[in-house]
Amino acid sequence: MQLVQQTINAIRPPDTTIHQAALQRLADQARPQGSLGILEPLAARLAGIAGTLDVRFRKKMIVTCAGDHGVVEEGVSLFPQEVTPQMVYNFVQGGASVSVLAAHSGAEVRVADLGVNHDFPPDLPIFHRKIGKGTANFTKTPAMSRADAIRSVAAGIEIVNQLVDRESLDLLGTGDMGIGNTSPSSAIIAAFSGLPVRTVTGRGTGIDEAMLQNKIAVIERALALHHPDPTDALDVLAKVGGFEIGGLAGLVIGAAARGIPVLCDGLISTAGALIACELAPAAKAYLFASHNSVEIGHRCMLERMGLTPLLNLDFRLGEGTGAAVAMHLLDAATRVLADIKTFAEVGIRNAQEG
Amino acid sequence: MQLVQQTINAIRPPDTTIHQAALQRLADQARPQGSLGILEPLAARLAGIAGTLDVRFRKKMIVTCAGDHGVVEEGVSLFPQEVTPQMVYNFVQGGASVSVLAAHSGAEVRVADLGVNHDFPPDLPIFHRKIGKGTANFTKTPAMSRADAIRSVAAGIEIVNQLVDRESLDLLGTGDMGIGNTSPSSAIIAAFSGLPVRTVTGRGTGIDEAMLQNKIAVIERALALHHPDPTDALDVLAKVGGFEIGGLAGLVIGAAARGIPVLCDGLISTAGALIACELAPAAKAYLFASHNSVEIGHRCMLERMGLTPLLNLDFRLGEGTGAAVAMHLLDAATRVLADIKTFAEVGIRNAQEG
Repeated sequence: MQLVQQTINAIRPPDTTIHQAALQRLADQARPQGSLGILEPLAARLAGIAGTLDVRFRKKMIVTCAGDHGVVEEGVSLFPQEVTPQMVYNFVQGGASVSVLAAHSGAEVRVADLGVNHDFPPDLPIFHRKIGKGTANFTKTPAMSRADAIRSVAAGIEIVNQLVDRESLDLLGTGDMGIGNTSPSSAIIAAFSGLPVRTVTGRGTGIDEAMLQNKIAVIERALALHHPDPTDALDVLAKVGGFEIGGLAGLVIGAAARGIPVLCDGLISTAGALIACELAPAAKAYLFASHNSVEIGHRCMLERMGLTPLLNLDFRLGEGTGAAVAMHLLDAATRVLADIKTFAEVGIRNAQEG
Repeated sequence: MQLVQQTINAIRPPDTTIHQAALQRLADQARPQGSLGILEPLAARLAGIAGTLDVRFRKKMIVTCAGDHGVVEEGVSLFPQEVTPQMVYNFVQGGASVSVLAAHSGAEVRVADLGVNHDFPPDLPIFHRKIGKGTANFTKTPAMSRADAIRSVAAGIEIVNQLVDRESLDLLGTGDMGIGNTSPSSAIIAAFSGLPVRTVTGRGTGIDEAMLQNKIAVIERALALHHPDPTDALDVLAKVGGFEIGGLAGLVIGAAARGIPVLCDGLISTAGALIACELAPAAKAYLFASHNSVEIGHRCMLERMGLTPLLNLDFRLGEGTGAAVAMHLLDAATRVLADIKTFAEVGIRNAQEG
């Protein structure tokens, strides 16, 4: 717990002076005030985080955390558990959706095994941080011990620290892979919010109505059995979470502590971000929501954190795909702030100053 | 009229076989079906247009059409008419919003003077296609003659032809500059749709309530005076349009005839696209709506053309800024289709095939 608590304590607020200076420069640019919509507050937040009006992301990465879930025994997913390691290999080979979209945004994909039910070769170029070979079936016992929940968050923090220290990471996106992981994600938002499970549970990879009703019943059973304490995020993570979700929470806490912006992706990444923000509310200042997932629980998570998604792409994939696409918008926002000339710079009188 | 009619006649439908093959490949990729949301139909449309599953845009451009508007005499805009040429110089120097966002998307900006009330030096690197030094005040006479309306559309077509022939343009975005040009744009959608002017008229660069009420009254007066014929797009363009709006219509028709996709931007670009589609419904197959402008008339235009905007950025700027940002999504869609591996390619059994 020491690393997790130290990292939470190390989170500092962004620079409000630079944030204000950014808003002023945006208002002075040779265009109608506010005319670049969502890019303006985005640019100002990024400037405050970076401490400069000329933000340039030189090392963008998506870290995709993988893990398996004992609850798949209950028939909550369309795909068999074997797909989790198969997709990890696909990420490493660069043929997966996130590989393609990250490359297009100038970002690298790094994969972290937090709990895949498969023995990867030790020389596979991934972060080998396996906490266990899949969680327990949370309809029977807690998904993991509290100690393992802490270990999973710590692993995420250590991954960020390593990437910042050794590779100068300066913009992080989070992604997930794990057959069955929409179930723990919906369970997490239900546990924190108290909302009925059916209002935060979707079709994941595309299950039919009967499977959806079963999935809802499975999550309801788990919550009724374990009563996760909504004021104790580690209790929620341990009882109904996942190893990769703990890792995703650690990524957000670690990025915030290192002062770099972090983009969460869809339902599972955002479940991790939610755990992070419940543990460390100060992390929210570094967190950006890349898109609005088709999964209905996602919106509830974002509302709870006060985040507005940048894109509406109707994605329901995960892996970090939405975060990869949104990186282009973050880069665009930095250029808007630094490169668009002000009225004074181009010698045009600003009508709005009367 | 000969060039305009010949160009309309030259528009061919995209390749439906390739379009279908694209949809099949997307469905076969190693991810849940439909999980990449709006990028999937987008990728398939682009493949059908290009006639290949591996579309690569090598020469992307935003053509920003500029013109002035006699109706500014009626106090419809916050900025003086002098800002139109000042912004043209700003585009050429690369310090404007569209310059910055286009550069970020790997696109060039070309400026076309269709009707700015200013004498540009002949060696200024823009398209010198001035039809007149600003339109007439359409509350008194038609904005332009029918012959000039045709000339403005022809100018847009010729610009596309030149860019395709000499510079291998393969993805076009459209943009606008012209103080006062939201008024003709709102008048155009009101004329075609019959909707009340107040439901399609917004605040442009940021006018207050009193100026908005005046702007609505000005447009209502023009429509009552001229009765533009909604079944005759050139009549609408001539009576309440603008030179740059005619040019923007020509860009869309020209791009469709040359078989290249064209992204329209906000209210004014889309007014041009609407003129194009009313003249040449076949052009719609080549047209993409980049974003949803804050300007309320924009949504009505898109609905009339059956287009769904790709982005919701809360932009209200024009210039081609939204088109520039959306180009990244078009590129992303092409990579999704070509580069994401299928289940067969990565050796994973597709659960959805049972």
